[in-house]
Amino acid sequence: MKTTRFGKLIGVSLGPGDPGLITRRAWEVMQGDAHWAYPVRSRKSESYALGITQRAGLSLPEHNGALLFPMTHDAEKLGIYWLEAANTVRSVLQTGRDVAFLVEGDASTYSTFGHLARTLKALDDTIEIEVIPGVPSFHAAAARLGEPLADVDDMMAIVPAGYGIAMLERLLEDFDTLILIKVKPILDDIIALLERKNLLAHSVFIEKSGAPEERIVRDVTSLKGEKVNYLSLLIIKNPDRQRGDIARGCRKVVRVEEQ
Amino acid sequence: MKTTRFGKLIGVSLGPGDPGLITRRAWEVMQGDAHWAYPVRSRKSESYALGITQRAGLSLPEHNGALLFPMTHDAEKLGIYWLEAANTVRSVLQTGRDVAFLVEGDASTYSTFGHLARTLKALDDTIEIEVIPGVPSFHAAAARLGEPLADVDDMMAIVPAGYGIAMLERLLEDFDTLILIKVKPILDDIIALLERKNLLAHSVFIEKSGAPEERIVRDVTSLKGEKVNYLSLLIIKNPDRQRGDIARGCRKVVRVEEQ
Repeated sequence: MKTTRFGKLIGVSLGPGDPGLITRRAWEVMQGDAHWAYPVRSRKSESYALGITQRAGLSLPEHNGALLFPMTHDAEKLGIYWLEAANTVRSVLQTGRDVAFLVEGDASTYSTFGHLARTLKALDDTIEIEVIPGVPSFHAAAARLGEPLADVDDMMAIVPAGYGIAMLERLLEDFDTLILIKVKPILDDIIALLERKNLLAHSVFIEKSGAPEERIVRDVTSLKGEKVNYLSLLIIKNPDRQRGDIARGCRKVVRVEEQ
Repeated sequence: MKTTRFGKLIGVSLGPGDPGLITRRAWEVMQGDAHWAYPVRSRKSESYALGITQRAGLSLPEHNGALLFPMTHDAEKLGIYWLEAANTVRSVLQTGRDVAFLVEGDASTYSTFGHLARTLKALDDTIEIEVIPGVPSFHAAAARLGEPLADVDDMMAIVPAGYGIAMLERLLEDFDTLILIKVKPILDDIIALLERKNLLAHSVFIEKSGAPEERIVRDVTSLKGEKVNYLSLLIIKNPDRQRGDIARGCRKVVRVEEQ
């Protein structure tokens, strides 16, 4: 039997960098007495998520600690770090205190929070978990550009660019908006594809949207050969794609695929 | 020459329904002295966006007005309403007052705000426009479900379901997560597809995420024959898809398509 009521884990999404994009619920949690946990990539590196709270004028509370999530794709190594992080969180929760895990962007979208929550659940599935969603970086980027990300009937995809140029070329047949993440390893090839498809004028590169070091590059070609930051994305609009018919809610039901 | 400084149009994203998801920047604008403009679908209907501010405990300011955006796909009719809305906004901006256009979800994503901003720019391209991004409904829905929307290397698409079953079937080959919007006209066909692909256990239907009338349906089959609300979506996870190789930032550059 548990002697103290366990605290709950709260995934606190902070948006991609602009402290104005922190939600009221996230703000409320951070003003409370939760322990702050924040991801770092190495013992020496700063936490990007924590930096957002600092720019928002919030002070680090007494109860806080970094959790180490190194940048590796080695599943075994990752598993060890996730387990260590989950155990650390669990030991705080055991004292009855809530843990606010601070994440940049949205906690459900390409975030370390998912791994932490899953590992914690595996340790103890009675632990309560709350997720506070946040503004994803691509929506913040679109707002900064002043251009819609998706308009009526638009198809939109978020794609790790590393799947390759053949995949991207295929997606351009179906999608009106492509958001490419992790563009670094094949950026030059992507630029060549955009050139070939006449899409350079409809593409914008954005790095660290909303942060002080935000960079917006409309002349994507100028990035050739550059090693870009991992917190960067490419928004590609595809205005000339050929659309199929669409069945809409206010018309009579049409089974498009049978036409 | 303009005698008064024009106000600016601010697209104020409020998130999909939970007033806790309003951002600090949106809150700040609504606490200021901007005119509130809010979309309605008919002169008699309530504004969903305005309802979020009411649940947040905000009172309607003295300067406010509904803008009519009827539910139609008639481009000519729509153009007339957009122009009327833009003219109304322009006449307020001319007095020097900012206009806060309240939108549910995110202003850049399937939103009337894009049409308003574009039409206003066409009337007068010197007018300043600010877009405050918000939490999109699908990210809020994922948080409510406590399940990641996209994990490392996941491909994710947001798709108006009306493009048809053949399209959806094709996308299931490439995507780990499909978010279907506007499912109403072909919901029964979608259920049949999910059944055939063994994806019913990985699909969840969510209506009005975060609003008091929120509805989460995990047994999607139970929706057969139902006329669902237009503010609904279906999140489909596709755990068994076959993935291709991926080139990653921390490895040496591999041109995947040339292997």
